[in-house]
Amino acid sequence: MSDPQRELGDRLDIKFNADGLVPALVQDADSGQVLMFAWMNDAALRHTLETRKATFYSRSRGKMWVKGEESGHVQEVVEARVDCDQDVVLLRVKSHGPACHVGYQTCFYRATEGVDRLKFVEERVFDPAKVYKK
Amino acid sequence: MSDPQRELGDRLDIKFNADGLVPALVQDADSGQVLMFAWMNDAALRHTLETRKATFYSRSRGKMWVKGEESGHVQEVVEARVDCDQDVVLLRVKSHGPACHVGYQTCFYRATEGVDRLKFVEERVFDPAKVYKK
Repeated sequence: MSDPQRELGDRLDIKFNADGLVPALVQDADSGQVLMFAWMNDAALRHTLETRKATFYSRSRGKMWVKGEESGHVQEVVEARVDCDQDVVLLRVKSHGPACHVGYQTCFYRATEGVDRLKFVEERVFDPAKVYKK
Repeated sequence: MSDPQRELGDRLDIKFNADGLVPALVQDADSGQVLMFAWMNDAALRHTLETRKATFYSRSRGKMWVKGEESGHVQEVVEARVDCDQDVVLLRVKSHGPACHVGYQTCFYRATEGVDRLKFVEERVFDPAKVYKK
């Protein structure tokens, strides 16, 4: 279960899953708010580290995408971290606009109530129809 | 791509993956620090919501586990959130001890340097050998 080389080393050695992907969490570097969750392949991770713009891999579209390429809401990477066994990436970003395509600052705009309901805990900040033309 | 019922509804309706799992992010409710990433199956999610103790599913051991059951470092759930399309869970917790089995407050104790190196950015807070007896 323990993997000392990955856990205590100083070499970036991401453990991609069977599909060649790694989960990526995005957190606002200023507010600490968790903004979104997405997947990266090796190319998206390299692109993120080289350009400092958060870049992911869309499983549904089967291609790499730069966050904000359509909406303009790019995420500038302040710091990229990895977890202990290097199978998760955490990006701390300066966000140029809301993260969520539904119109909220964060994708996590609802909290659970009891075991089967949700309540809205964030305010909608933009109208998706005006930002996404397609 | 868009799923209005899941995105704008008030019914908890998690989209588990093909293995019956959903990614769960854990954030310290006070400091905002992202602590760890794990997976949940339906039973682990229910157990989390019913007991308010963060509970996950271990893919390697093939069973549910309550965070802190061995180390004592339980995570009390202050708030559980879901993302827009309900395929990610975010737990905001009060942490009773460090989150990472390697001995750090958070699993994300290293940041990337360039495209292939890591540097340690957190201090180790406990000796795993003294906490995990097995």
